[in-house]
Amino acid sequence: MLAVTGIGELLTLAPDGDVLGVHHDATVVITDGKVAFAGPAREAPALPSDALRIDARGALCTPGLVEPHAHPIFAGSRAGEFDLRARGATYGEIQAAGGGILATVRATSAATDEELVASTLARLDRLLDHGVTVCEAKTGYSLDVDGELRLLRLLGEVKRRHAIDLSPTLLAHVPPPDCSSGEERRGFVERFRAEAILAAARAGAEAFDVYCDAGAFTLDETRALLGAARASGLALRVHAEQFTNTGAADLAAAMGARSVEHLEQIAPPAIAALARAGTVCNLLPGAALTLRLPWPDARRLVDAGCAVALGTDLNPGSSLTESLPLMMSLACMQMGLGCAEAWRAVTVQAARSVGRGDAGRLVAGARGDLVLWDAGDHREVAQHFGVNLARTVVVGGQVVRGG
Amino acid sequence: MLAVTGIGELLTLAPDGDVLGVHHDATVVITDGKVAFAGPAREAPALPSDALRIDARGALCTPGLVEPHAHPIFAGSRAGEFDLRARGATYGEIQAAGGGILATVRATSAATDEELVASTLARLDRLLDHGVTVCEAKTGYSLDVDGELRLLRLLGEVKRRHAIDLSPTLLAHVPPPDCSSGEERRGFVERFRAEAILAAARAGAEAFDVYCDAGAFTLDETRALLGAARASGLALRVHAEQFTNTGAADLAAAMGARSVEHLEQIAPPAIAALARAGTVCNLLPGAALTLRLPWPDARRLVDAGCAVALGTDLNPGSSLTESLPLMMSLACMQMGLGCAEAWRAVTVQAARSVGRGDAGRLVAGARGDLVLWDAGDHREVAQHFGVNLARTVVVGGQVVRGG
Repeated sequence: MLAVTGIGELLTLAPDGDVLGVHHDATVVITDGKVAFAGPAREAPALPSDALRIDARGALCTPGLVEPHAHPIFAGSRAGEFDLRARGATYGEIQAAGGGILATVRATSAATDEELVASTLARLDRLLDHGVTVCEAKTGYSLDVDGELRLLRLLGEVKRRHAIDLSPTLLAHVPPPDCSSGEERRGFVERFRAEAILAAARAGAEAFDVYCDAGAFTLDETRALLGAARASGLALRVHAEQFTNTGAADLAAAMGARSVEHLEQIAPPAIAALARAGTVCNLLPGAALTLRLPWPDARRLVDAGCAVALGTDLNPGSSLTESLPLMMSLACMQMGLGCAEAWRAVTVQAARSVGRGDAGRLVAGARGDLVLWDAGDHREVAQHFGVNLARTVVVGGQVVRGG
Repeated sequence: MLAVTGIGELLTLAPDGDVLGVHHDATVVITDGKVAFAGPAREAPALPSDALRIDARGALCTPGLVEPHAHPIFAGSRAGEFDLRARGATYGEIQAAGGGILATVRATSAATDEELVASTLARLDRLLDHGVTVCEAKTGYSLDVDGELRLLRLLGEVKRRHAIDLSPTLLAHVPPPDCSSGEERRGFVERFRAEAILAAARAGAEAFDVYCDAGAFTLDETRALLGAARASGLALRVHAEQFTNTGAADLAAAMGARSVEHLEQIAPPAIAALARAGTVCNLLPGAALTLRLPWPDARRLVDAGCAVALGTDLNPGSSLTESLPLMMSLACMQMGLGCAEAWRAVTVQAARSVGRGDAGRLVAGARGDLVLWDAGDHREVAQHFGVNLARTVVVGGQVVRGG
């Protein structure tokens, strides 16, 4: 049993409270890895003398954060490409200098299993440092069928070795560079459908994601791949409307996708469709910041009734960060979200996106994941940006960071 | 003696090397608090057996960072105002809700000396965590003469108690709210000139800064205050052209100011004047991000021959952050600086801005301040954003963070 007492502000995200379920002078009790009590200290149960106690000394206590969109398994550095872009190089110049996604594919193929597992574990360590206890994790830096299944297997190994609860996703990122003819491309999509997606479900993938955009998969290819994934029992995700508007968000809504990603270029009819379908919109401010794209219009999506989650988009090219709190800051500063909406976006909404109904809330029966923050209230975590305020992280009732 | 060996990439910022003075497989030796050697390992002097050694294990090693613009001494939280702004409140609504600079002035006046010293020390701890070893620090949250001198005295106490080398600045922030008539206002400016500025030089201030903008001091008031400061031997700084173009940057150049701050709204003739005068342009991306202002055009300033430094602008309202590395990321992502220019902006250029000629460089005779980073090369520190990659921080040859 773990009891956290002296909490200055507690966010339970309980569905029957105010929007965040705020309590002051609160206590959380975790038994057998699950929340037994979370609420006002005066209503807390009597604690046995052998309970492990943490005095929060007035700190903010929230559920563990849920990362709904990450590409954590890759090798190599694209810092040179970052510098070229900063100095004004065009996309073509970056490609000519050996940059872009294929640089990561080459480095990832050349890396040993041990190297990939070690670097992915280090990235999860940094996510955990910043309060994340549940994390979606995509393959995507091999491109071919065997290579993507290798990355899925390695994500399984990482999951067994880390405190973070990983939710693996098979990603169809872009067609491999050897698919130059239409026939080769059709052959690749067919192999991905028949082999990768079928095998992925058996190899521990919970979801399938496809990148539908200019330079990636077409809308027809996306439809075919999603159909196969649905038939295999995988949850569906779609990278949609990032650089160009392809209609992928409408398709995702129509096919009952669990989430859509990016949405920088989304149009109003698709917004209404996503709201009706209950598809979670995973917005990724880190990519917009890094690539100098327009910010995703979180305000408009929330006002239209969409479920909005925030992710880091952790990846080696367009968003190299493990700080989900910084994404909250960016959403409040630039995307029109209030602090309460930003907190919901990295807890209950992100938990929906990752299919973890028992995460993102501190209510009786939920998983015993929580974070104590060096902050007096929840708004300070969004305001005080770029520094890590997560003081203590608890996963399943075990203290895994701080104390 | 401290010897750092096994450095994968060393930035010396030596004036005779390439722009960053890069060496691979390098060593740094610090004796009596000063750099005795910094360069290729094969050229390093023989080390006595009792030298303290740190093996960098291939890490990046740079000079300690220099923060050229911070408001670290204040009390109270403006997280409520942050949330209001995020949800679209106007400036008037925020003022009506008790927000704005006067909220901080009230909280700072109500705080005890001990509280102010403790919270300022905690902010310096976070700056040091992120690699800062020299920091400019402004008063400014009292407004009246006695209160500003109190803050200056407390900054002196903080300086004595912290490893960071603080450079205190007296700031004329905005006229106090009781200066409603023209006569009262003239009286205040005259008192500030005759009393605060004179006393500040004796109380340890190295510089005087004035905020010239709509709602703050006029150009004529700014000229009068700067004249008095120059006569008192203080270095001059000017908050110029942030919200409106007042001509303050031209004035600063004409008066030989050491630095100008913000510059979001600067016009081309003033840019040329700043370049000619050698006045350092302290750009503050954290404020532009927080307030959704246009980004300062660092590219244009550098191309015009200006010296550009980057600061956090650490303050409770418009930029609550202690991460100078994040400012480098923002400058590369949004303001057109290459990684090498961003590094110069937080080392040699910032050191000029703070009047520390022996900081921001690792050359024989410079101060023995350095940082080891969890990064293979200098570009990764800018690319990998929002997480703290500073692994070890050394001040004057003493290890003060990590090891």
